[in-house]
Amino acid sequence: MSAFVPPKRHTSRHLPFGDRRDAPFYGQHIVSVKQFDRDDLTYIFEVAHEMREMVMRVGSFDLLKGKILANLFYEPSTRTSSSFTAAMERLGGSVIPINEVRYSSVSKGESLPDTVRTLESYVDVVVLRHPQKGAAALAAQYARKPVINAGDGAGEHPTQALLDLFTIREELGQVDGLTITMLGDLKYGRTVHSLARLLSLYDVRLNYVAPEILRMPREIIAELEAKGIPQAEHTTSEAVLAETDVLYVTRVQKERFEDPAQYEAVKGSYVITPETMAQAKKRMILMHPFPRVGEISMDVDADPRAAYFRQMEYGLYVRMALLALVLGKA
Amino acid sequence: MSAFVPPKRHTSRHLPFGDRRDAPFYGQHIVSVKQFDRDDLTYIFEVAHEMREMVMRVGSFDLLKGKILANLFYEPSTRTSSSFTAAMERLGGSVIPINEVRYSSVSKGESLPDTVRTLESYVDVVVLRHPQKGAAALAAQYARKPVINAGDGAGEHPTQALLDLFTIREELGQVDGLTITMLGDLKYGRTVHSLARLLSLYDVRLNYVAPEILRMPREIIAELEAKGIPQAEHTTSEAVLAETDVLYVTRVQKERFEDPAQYEAVKGSYVITPETMAQAKKRMILMHPFPRVGEISMDVDADPRAAYFRQMEYGLYVRMALLALVLGKA
Amino acid sequence: MSAFVPPKRHTSRHLPFGDRRDAPFYGQHIVSVKQFDRDDLTYIFEVAHEMREMVMRVGSFDLLKGKILANLFYEPSTRTSSSFTAAMERLGGSVIPINEVRYSSVSKGESLPDTVRTLESYVDVVVLRHPQKGAAALAAQYARKPVINAGDGAGEHPTQALLDLFTIREELGQVDGLTITMLGDLKYGRTVHSLARLLSLYDVRLNYVAPEILRMPREIIAELEAKGIPQAEHTTSEAVLAETDVLYVTRVQKERFEDPAQYEAVKGSYVITPETMAQAKKRMILMHPFPRVGEISMDVDADPRAAYFRQMEYGLYVRMALLALVLGKA
Repeated sequence: MSAFVPPKRHTSRHLPFGDRRDAPFYGQHIVSVKQFDRDDLTYIFEVAHEMREMVMRVGSFDLLKGKILANLFYEPSTRTSSSFTAAMERLGGSVIPINEVRYSSVSKGESLPDTVRTLESYVDVVVLRHPQKGAAALAAQYARKPVINAGDGAGEHPTQALLDLFTIREELGQVDGLTITMLGDLKYGRTVHSLARLLSLYDVRLNYVAPEILRMPREIIAELEAKGIPQAEHTTSEAVLAETDVLYVTRVQKERFEDPAQYEAVKGSYVITPETMAQAKKRMILMHPFPRVGEISMDVDADPRAAYFRQMEYGLYVRMALLALVLGKA
Repeated sequence: MSAFVPPKRHTSRHLPFGDRRDAPFYGQHIVSVKQFDRDDLTYIFEVAHEMREMVMRVGSFDLLKGKILANLFYEPSTRTSSSFTAAMERLGGSVIPINEVRYSSVSKGESLPDTVRTLESYVDVVVLRHPQKGAAALAAQYARKPVINAGDGAGEHPTQALLDLFTIREELGQVDGLTITMLGDLKYGRTVHSLARLLSLYDVRLNYVAPEILRMPREIIAELEAKGIPQAEHTTSEAVLAETDVLYVTRVQKERFEDPAQYEAVKGSYVITPETMAQAKKRMILMHPFPRVGEISMDVDADPRAAYFRQMEYGLYVRMALLALVLGKA
Repeated sequence: MSAFVPPKRHTSRHLPFGDRRDAPFYGQHIVSVKQFDRDDLTYIFEVAHEMREMVMRVGSFDLLKGKILANLFYEPSTRTSSSFTAAMERLGGSVIPINEVRYSSVSKGESLPDTVRTLESYVDVVVLRHPQKGAAALAAQYARKPVINAGDGAGEHPTQALLDLFTIREELGQVDGLTITMLGDLKYGRTVHSLARLLSLYDVRLNYVAPEILRMPREIIAELEAKGIPQAEHTTSEAVLAETDVLYVTRVQKERFEDPAQYEAVKGSYVITPETMAQAKKRMILMHPFPRVGEISMDVDADPRAAYFRQMEYGLYVRMALLALVLGKA
């Protein structure tokens, strides 16, 4: 599977809510964070912000009434699946949940292009979760209707990266000038890779806090280096907590370590507690892509800086914006 | 898990259909039958009766248009899940079906409070089915949005008890003055326990018909005794059939018996046939929580006193009422 | 399970879109292709054609707003399930997806009649997929609400046959006078059996192209013979390609052959390539019920005669028509 990125078609920039076929992103696939420039992000986030205000004011509205989304999940992901479903339903649209692909004859032998072309006979937009890297690009290559990548294995999960960035924007007002510290498993976490790439479009400083064996990959550091982004690596967070505006935590999995003793020795450095928060700025935010399994203590939940539940809500608005955009309704 | 029961907030009693934030049950969790007094039941059943009339007149209506329900089932239950889904859809609302929790990363390690707080970022109300007793109370403790208990293992299944009672009310006009006979497995059936508790709010007589090893638990009998409810225990139904207004049947499972011969010896006493019905009152009703596996003969289905399919329909109205109430729309 | 076919109730023929209780097919079950005569098909296809035009013009519309479909699948079939769901949603109705029947207590011991009678307490129409022949007829026997057979094992899949025929009508304008060639596994494919039966209501010629061990069953050939349908059998397609108006391809499964060498020897004759298409008429269509696993080369997809993706779209319109008809809304 090759990394197909669909061409951009947008030429004008109008704000919601009209119904225009010449609108930016209309008919486009959302496959990779690489397809967005800073203007794209500004535009998407403006629409997402409008969505947020509309949901707060009226809960749901009929912008996508009559539109149907196929929510095609080759592997389960309750969080992402529910978020896209809610996004479509809050816009008055309908959803076809397809969660049983594993057991279905569709999966036994049928190619992904055939499955996607089948579904687009019925629906207006396809959200695809697939365990294989490149699956979304392959689907997009064959589909006439927009395909949105909801995670393709070791590949990307672009809507997660967009919602992470939108969270920062909504919580802190802007992205430029911030210091973002990523902590935990920075080697295997596709979330932090995609987010780092998006952040490189802004004027930010990045800190990477990880155990030696889970450091941020060299190629990503080189990529951001080339763009002039200041980056620093650490094995514990002490030195950087006081300067951090955004602390982005990911899970350190025991299974990554050959020697369990090695895991036991370091794990404490990657758990966020009220004590950690005491060393942090008054105006910072703590983020996590979830699920968490112990790496942020529940004692931190009541701290107003704990943004991870609000982060999910921002995900709803970003997905509402993307659905409206690719369907030409924003 | 502790038995958390949310505080009552209702102060006024107005009938449907307005949109009021000061309405009874608005924002409340439905966790246990213990949270209801007789006035509560009267109110819920008045709303459920309105729902019944509306469905008969127009099928569906848009009372909850724009509202979203997360139907979170940690164990499958087609009947309950479908009933809540239909209830929400008949009110014009949308549903996110979450049936795959077992396979999902959400279930692998993520705590129930985190899952519920995730979902409430997207939706307006959560229906929870969980194999562990206390799960609904735990979820309610963390949730900002209303949680409705759709069964928590050996705990409760309050909407089943409510629909059972509503069935009696709708079919026989009132509950006071009735003789209710519960038959079958009265030891392990949470259904009959919850129903007995609700019935103790009324002026009723209760008969328990069960094999020796499946008798109604002592503590429930004592609880009702303290409330002055006349109760009698029997091992067969002959003596009580003629005086029974409601015959509530539950399944006697072979697996409960150590000695299969013992099961074979008694099972006939707990199967309802046209012959059983011949001994019963002309104006009585036969109920069953379903599924049945032989304990009511299909030959009884055509008897107008066989109320078990209507019972499911009443369940739809009760769940419509509860959804409308906790969302402040009834 | 006996082959129950519900009586016809339609007496008048009016075209969409009113709301009439005296409409043809109102309240009927769709169990078997045998229940339709040629007038029925003409009527259904006129409604399906209206559905096609409406979808092209407005995408979705509210003909079945407030109606609920129970999509009851005892075995997974993403294609059929999604098609019915989209059909209901494009008509403004709601769907209860029931895909987990295998794991559910409903399936453990509960009879199909009880499950169907439970669901019809909540919904307006039931679509049933079941691995056992006769299941749909059995369900229809007990249901008060319309049941639509979405495949009952070795039995029938009537909506597939209807959509196949509708595809021919829409693509080629008429059915009379056409030569239809069925190719592949004609022995076990219930799709080709049902389609052959429906085609026998028209003035057509049929060619059967199959390996010796997968020939069209004698009883079907005899049935069509009795109706005066010209039929011819071949083992390869060369002789009939030039005269064929519709080439209907089904999969030849390796597992059907005792000797793998035998399979290898013949399989090439049942794979459609651009070379095959070069020998076919300019105005012909290539159909396949899907999924395909190699029997039509992807190189053929761009050929305008390749109708298999459009065929799925026609399936949407046929299912919209059937849902509207049995609910008395077309």
